[in-house]
Parts: sequence; C-alpha cells; structure tokens
Amino acid sequence: MAFKFQIHNDIQFQRNEQFLEKSRSLIPAPKRENFAGAGVVRLIEDPIKLERVGVEETNENLSSLLLGQDDTIILDFHDHRVGSFFIQAESVGSPMDAPLHIRLRFAEVAAELAHSSSEYDGWLSSSWIQEEFLHIDELPALITLPRRYSFRFVEIKVLDTSPKWKVRFTNPVVITENAVSTNDIPPLHLKDPELEAIWKVSVKTLADCMTDVFEDGPKRDRRLWMGDLRLQALSNYATFHNEDLVLRCLYLFGAMPASDGRISANVFVRPKEVADDTFLYDYSLFFISILSDYMNEYGRKTVLEDLYPAAKQQMDLALSFVKPEGFIELDENYPVFVDWSNEFNKEACAQAVTIYALRQFIDLTRQMNQDPAFYEQMLAQLLDYARTTLYDAEDGLFQTRDGEKNIASQVWMVLANVPVDCEQAKRVMENTLASLFPVRDIATPYMYSHITEALFKTGLTDAAVKLMKDYWGKMIELGADTFWEAFDPDRPDYSPYGNPIISSYCHAWSCTPAYLIQKYLVKKSI
Amino acid sequence: MAFKFQIHNDIQFQRNEQFLEKSRSLIPAPKRENFAGAGVVRLIEDPIKLERVGVEETNENLSSLLLGQDDTIILDFHDHRVGSFFIQAESVGSPMDAPLHIRLRFAEVAAELAHSSSEYDGWLSSSWIQEEFLHIDELPALITLPRRYSFRFVEIKVLDTSPKWKVRFTNPVVITENAVSTNDIPPLHLKDPELEAIWKVSVKTLADCMTDVFEDGPKRDRRLWMGDLRLQALSNYATFHNEDLVLRCLYLFGAMPASDGRISANVFVRPKEVADDTFLYDYSLFFISILSDYMNEYGRKTVLEDLYPAAKQQMDLALSFVKPEGFIELDENYPVFVDWSNEFNKEACAQAVTIYALRQFIDLTRQMNQDPAFYEQMLAQLLDYARTTLYDAEDGLFQTRDGEKNIASQVWMVLANVPVDCEQAKRVMENTLASLFPVRDIATPYMYSHITEALFKTGLTDAAVKLMKDYWGKMIELGADTFWEAFDPDRPDYSPYGNPIISSYCHAWSCTPAYLIQKYLVKKSI
Repeated sequence: MAFKFQIHNDIQFQRNEQFLEKSRSLIPAPKRENFAGAGVVRLIEDPIKLERVGVEETNENLSSLLLGQDDTIILDFHDHRVGSFFIQAESVGSPMDAPLHIRLRFAEVAAELAHSSSEYDGWLSSSWIQEEFLHIDELPALITLPRRYSFRFVEIKVLDTSPKWKVRFTNPVVITENAVSTNDIPPLHLKDPELEAIWKVSVKTLADCMTDVFEDGPKRDRRLWMGDLRLQALSNYATFHNEDLVLRCLYLFGAMPASDGRISANVFVRPKEVADDTFLYDYSLFFISILSDYMNEYGRKTVLEDLYPAAKQQMDLALSFVKPEGFIELDENYPVFVDWSNEFNKEACAQAVTIYALRQFIDLTRQMNQDPAFYEQMLAQLLDYARTTLYDAEDGLFQTRDGEKNIASQVWMVLANVPVDCEQAKRVMENTLASLFPVRDIATPYMYSHITEALFKTGLTDAAVKLMKDYWGKMIELGADTFWEAFDPDRPDYSPYGNPIISSYCHAWSCTPAYLIQKYLVKKSI
Repeated sequence: MAFKFQIHNDIQFQRNEQFLEKSRSLIPAPKRENFAGAGVVRLIEDPIKLERVGVEETNENLSSLLLGQDDTIILDFHDHRVGSFFIQAESVGSPMDAPLHIRLRFAEVAAELAHSSSEYDGWLSSSWIQEEFLHIDELPALITLPRRYSFRFVEIKVLDTSPKWKVRFTNPVVITENAVSTNDIPPLHLKDPELEAIWKVSVKTLADCMTDVFEDGPKRDRRLWMGDLRLQALSNYATFHNEDLVLRCLYLFGAMPASDGRISANVFVRPKEVADDTFLYDYSLFFISILSDYMNEYGRKTVLEDLYPAAKQQMDLALSFVKPEGFIELDENYPVFVDWSNEFNKEACAQAVTIYALRQFIDLTRQMNQDPAFYEQMLAQLLDYARTTLYDAEDGLFQTRDGEKNIASQVWMVLANVPVDCEQAKRVMENTLASLFPVRDIATPYMYSHITEALFKTGLTDAAVKLMKDYWGKMIELGADTFWEAFDPDRPDYSPYGNPIISSYCHAWSCTPAYLIQKYLVKKSI
C-alpha cells in the first residue's frame, strides 16, 4: 500500500458555529467500566497465531512477584480495552534510594510485544507507538498515565530500581469510557458459531471505536474519517442504535467544508474542531450517503434541511468532473480512495461511487421537495457511459476506459446498481468470482466489506459467507479480539507499516460484519 | 572508588514521634523563583571545559524554530537551577494528525549532553538519569513534568511529529523552590577575584542543596546524609544562617536511631521519614559534632536536652570499639567512611574522628551539667595511643598501626587536636605537604575540604588557598556553576560512575569554601 500525505496549508475552511454547537450538544455521556483481574502471561510460540506469537498464563500471582532491574511482566486483560491504565506499585526491601524507572508497552495483539520500537522505520509517525517511560520518585504510588491506550496486554519492564530494593505491582485496572457498551445489546445467537463469533468481534470493534466521535482506530489516528463513518453508522443501526453519535459526526463534517465547499476526508475534535486538509473524492460524496442512510433510519426532516446544502455542494463539485462523454476524470489533488492499494485503476470505481451517491442525492432532493431533474439527467448520462463503454458484454464485467477489469470496479458498479437488472448484477458477480477471484493484493477490511456486500446483494450468499469467514474469521483464528485495520489473508503477517507495533488492531472500517450479518442473514431469515 | 551497598533489612528502627513532629514543624517555606529567558545554544568543542565540551549561543530565536523529526534544541538557563521545567508547545502546519513525541534531557554540565543514556552501565541506579520521553496528544499545550530536575541545560529532541506539521516551543521557564535564595545574602567582596568566584559558587551549591532538608545532591540521592549535613551546617552558619533547617535535620536523625541506638548515615523524608539501613562509624559520631556546632552557634539548651541522649548513645557505641591498648578496631558492618577511596588505611582516621567527636561530646556533657570524667578518661587513653603508637616522631607524621602514612590520617589528627600543641600540628601539616603531597587518588571535595581546613587551622594559609584554587578553582575553570560530587584534578574527566550523565554536579559536601573562606580568611582579616 502507499498513502500519499496531502498537505494543503493554503486551504481555508468555513466554520458554521451553529452546527458545531449542535455537534457538541450531541456528545454522548461516556459509559465508564472498570476491568480488573488481569492475568500474568508470557509470550510463547503458537503456530496458529499472528506472527506465531501467542501467550500462556504463567500461573503466577502478580502480588507475589518482586521485580528488579530488567525484569518484565506481561498483564493480560483478557479482551480488547480502550481506556486508562492504573497500577499500584510499592518498594520492597531497604528504603527506596533511587527512583523507579519503568517502561510500559500497550499491545492490542501479542505479536506487538515481540517487536521493539527501535526497529520501526515506517512512514507513519512513530509517535503512535504505545510505549511510555516513567520515573517514579516515591513509592508506594498509584501509577497513572495521562493518556488513553488501546490494548489487551500491558508489558511492564523494570529498567531500574537499585540493588537495595525491588518493586511489587498490584491491582492493575483499566477504566474504559466508550459511548456504548457491548452489554447494551443482547447477544445474537446464530446457528453457525463461526458467524456468531464474527458478529461478536465486529460489535466489539465498533463499540471500541465509539467515543465522542466514531473513531477510525482507538490506538492510532483516533479521528473521524468519512469513509469509516459510513460503515460505522450502518453497523451502529444494526446494533447500538446510537443516533446522537451519527448526528454529531454529520454536523461536524457539515460545519467545516473548505472555502470551495469540499468536505474534508476527516476531522479532528481536540483540542477544538478542525477539518483536515486531506480531500478524497469518494469520501466527500459519502457525506451524501451517510445523510441518506441516516434519513432512511430516522427520517428527521430538520436534519436534512440543515445538511442538504452541504450534500448538494459535494454532488455539484463531483459532477464538475464529469466529461461531456459521461465519464469522470479526477484531479490528482482530489483522488478517489476506494482502497489503499494503488495497484489497480480506480477510474470505474469513481464512476460507480458517483452514481451510488447521486441516486441517494436525488432521493434526498425529492425529500426536500426540490426538483431533481438536473441530477436525474446527470445520472442518466453517467449510467449510460458506465453501462456501455465501461461494460464489456462479452465477458459480463465492467472495465476501465483502458480495458482493466478489477474486482473493485465490479463491486462498486453492483453496489451502485449500474447493471440493468438483478440478473445482470448477479452475473457480474458470478463472473467476478469465476475470473477475478481470489482477491489479491487487497489488505483492507474496507474493500473486503464492499466485496462481501456486493456478493450478498446479488444473492451469492454462500460466496459472501465464505469470504467473510475466510477474511474476518481468519483474523479471529489468528487471535483477533477486535478486527484489524489491515489484513491480507495471503500474507497473514503483513503489516502496512512493516511492523505490528504501529498497526491498528481495532479499526472502524472492519466492523461491518455486524451490519452485513444483520442485513443479509438475520433479517432475511426472519 | 568503590562504595559497598549495605543491606540490613533485619534492622529495626526507633521512631520518636515527638521529634518527628518537631522536625516537620521546622520545614522552611519554599522560596519560589521563576527563571525565563533561556538561550538557545549548541555544543562545541572547548578545550578548557569538562570533557572538552562547551556551548555557544546559536543566536536563534526559540520561537522562530520549527522542529520536525530528529530535530534537537538545547536551552541554556545560564546558571544551575533546581526546579520544575515548563515550556509551551504548539503545532504549525496541517492539523496535528499524530501525537508529539519528544525526549527531554536535563544536564547540569554540557558534557552530559555529549553522552547517551544507553552507554551507561554503572553500579548506581540508571533511574537517576535525567531523561524523559513524553507523548503529547494535543497541541497547543503547556508541557509540564511532574518531577523536579537539577540542571542548567535542557535538551529537547523531537522524536516524531508527522510529515504534516512541525512543533514550535516557546516560553521555557524554570520554577525553583529552595529554602533559601542566594539573593538573601549580600555578596562577599574579596581582593582575590578567584577566591570570590569560589565563594560565590560555594554559596550557590549550598543554596541549591537546601530544600526541605539539607540534600546531598539535588540531581542524585537527594537525601540527608550526616557527613554532608555537618559541612552544610557549617557553611550555612557562614552564609544563610538558616537555623530551622539545621534543627529539622538534627531532629530527623535524632528521631530514628536503630534499635541498638546507632544513628543511620542518612534518612529519607518522602513519602514519610525513614532511616536508611546504611551505617557509617564516622557519620554516626558526626551527630555529636553537628549538635556541638549548633550549640556553639545558637546555644539553645532545650535542643541539647532533647538530643543529648542520642549523642551520648553514639559516643558510647563508638567507645565500645576501643581496645584496652587504646586503639579502635571497627566492625566491617560499621565501616568508617572518611573518603570514597578505599586505597588507604582509615584506621588512624577512625581514631582521630573519635577523638574529634569525643572532645565535642565532653563539652556537651559539661553543658548538660553532667560528669564527663569517664569520657575524659577515654579521651586521654585514645589521645595517648594516638600520640605515641600512631605518631612517628622521626618524620613527624601520624601512621596506622602497620605503619601506613597517608594524608587523611594527618588531616584528621590535626582537626582532632591530637598533636600536643600548635607547633607540632603545623609541623605535621608541613611534613604532609613536603612528603605526602600532592594529593593523589582522592576525588571527593569532602576529603579535600578536610585537607584544606587542616592547612588553614595550622596557619598554612598560602598552601590552603593554593589547594582551594587548584581544586575548587579548577572546577570553575572547567565550567562549574556549582561544585561537584567528585573531582580528581589529575583526571579532570573522571566520573566515579564512568559516565557524567549520572554524576552529581551540585553536591552538598563540596560547598565548604563558603565556610572556610569566612572562617579562615574573612574573619581573620577583620
């Protein structure tokens, strides 16, 4: 994968204080939960786990361990946690004649603990590595850290005490403060235990990404991205039904478009709300999709009235890229994302995403009692180009203008209802399975989610379930408590940053099985 | 040097709550001072400075510097400071899309910054190294650190920001909270500018070691040691006249003898008062000396009445080591310190220190209106042995029982008034200068202080001043803002721990020129 940092310091942003005030009023009260009872574990070689690194209980009682220079313990909190870590420390022996110096490492998966931060030399900021060095001058003390961490395991290494005393740690606790708790919703009982496990881990993933916004990853990035929000909101409608948080995020995006009207791909909320200077063509359009999905779920006219102008602006800007022939030619400063991989041509995807959002926008326009004629005419033009020039009737697959046929194009054309009917759509996905599968060089649950949905949508349920199990199920096999930012089943140990210590193992865009299972398996079976 | 850690977990300590309460009531109100206006400097090779490391101003304005990955700045606070460090940080560029990760190093001398903490492999706990790693999730922020540091220089290294933004630091401030301020006392104008500089740095050293106790070093150890207290109290009487702090320390030691009556070599006061399980024969006896010096200064009978029993206990315990012949044979669990060096025989020193303290104890006994007969008899016995068996009339030098003649023995015999008269004392020191000088393999200002005082005491003022200049003056030449824990003029770069980052460059026992100059040069000249 390769992700090019966009730096546009010159771009000015609008700031609708009324919308921001509205977004602040929707911050959910955090649900505080305490988790104690961590076990003491050691790393072991485990051939079925990520990077062959597993853990086993040492059967040691934490409070019976006296640690000196270079001694290390690993605490296991038994599931993924996002929160603050606390532990009591006391000195044992002669009086404490030097500070205690410790290193703490927080890890979402055991494999992270098999790596050292000094190895890391990737393009993402090393400042995301969850490693802290602490001096404690006086013991006993309750060790508190001012930051939030995302982890299941905490490794504590005693860098030094003194020859005269050792340190004993007791009462490790994590305090989590998410917007929702997995205890809020009843368990989903499925006949297939593998699917039930996938559903459960999806829900946990979603919950751990819901704080005062829908975060993309509680370990890393931690901000609100549009592409992730679309999938999180859908999964939320299938599980927690937290309307406020979706609405808060919509208002955040709606409050801060750039001066040219484009909505940023992501926003920050701390210390104050700021839109990022990164713009992605499809992500801007997903503002329309999220608003449309929200209206389908809750139908609140006042929200639509507030946010329709910003939605319209995204669509109008997107349509300015439509060439007279009916295809879309993007600017390099406004790339379409679709997936991290840049190994395939995304042009047909851009066409399909535009159609996808345009259909939703026309629906919103009607709900606003406005005339959609212009947009319907544009839809017809885009559809026509897609159904003729971009469709190869011979093999029943969509292609780019230069003839490249890739999975992503088929998936987005199907999701956008570009095929003339359900049968053609199904044939496209059957042809995709037959001639483009297996998926290669795609490492994001984001793209896998869209592929899976396109299979479900066209009635290829077995293939969809198989893909879900091969992908998300495989992560669970490898030890996932929450689903990962990146996973390539052909290269299970692959990390997009070359080192698992910087990877996010709880990432918003991988939470979609909660949505897909509910929509295509549970609802259907009712 | 070699210092053997004493570990005596089995020793029980007494706890006189009334004395502890008294000691708490004497904690001085801290004098808060703010120091802003730090300059930006870089390290340069400077042949006259410690380890050939000096600094020069970069003439850069801190607030104009934008720092990214691996950029480093060094701030110079222009003098030694003991306190809390604060600095403002803000991000400049695109929104802050990753935490700021910085490393801070606090250095008393520039040479420390030329070393890395990873090099350190000494016997003292590495936890003393003044190096912190910080993640800051949100900028702008006032960066505060919970700990106190001892430093002149602060190095800030940006470990990472992100490619999208840089960090700007502004308004670095140190807030110090010592018991005294060097502004409290008038400057001392001496004809000799070198001596005046030595006096000034001594006073600064003493001030920076005076907080809620007389600390041994604000960078490292930070606790109250008896041997240091004796010298600090004497220097304090010559400068700040802070009676309360001396009294507080006397009551601290007096409150917590071991169950056998011995007073520990040092005590801790945080989080609560605890006596260390380290015992040094001479340090226990110095409780008598400090009480005696205090009575000479302030003459408060109630204090003497409170603390005389503990003083008596030290003397009685010491006298239990006197053999019938009149010499002292120590136990290895109760060694005599005299100096870090174990390269010379300290037996004669132990004899002299006992005599030194016994003379003071007899005086205190008289002040208590008690009968000193037994102690006078013991003094006579000890003196007799020292003046005969331990004195070699042929070369006019003191010796150990096996005939070793070292500087420390001469010095302590002179300080203890063992020579029969002033003429003999002067001859001993003249002979010392002639046949044992120059000082070799002694690296502590503690021992140098006693040597200098013995020269002053015997009227060898020129030699005393020369030694003071060659030793303390040389530290100033090498860049000292405060005097060091250890300095060997034959090996200026010598650090007792193999690495300057762990050395204490502001250490209580090196503050004595303030006392020596006042007593032997200023008072004399009046």
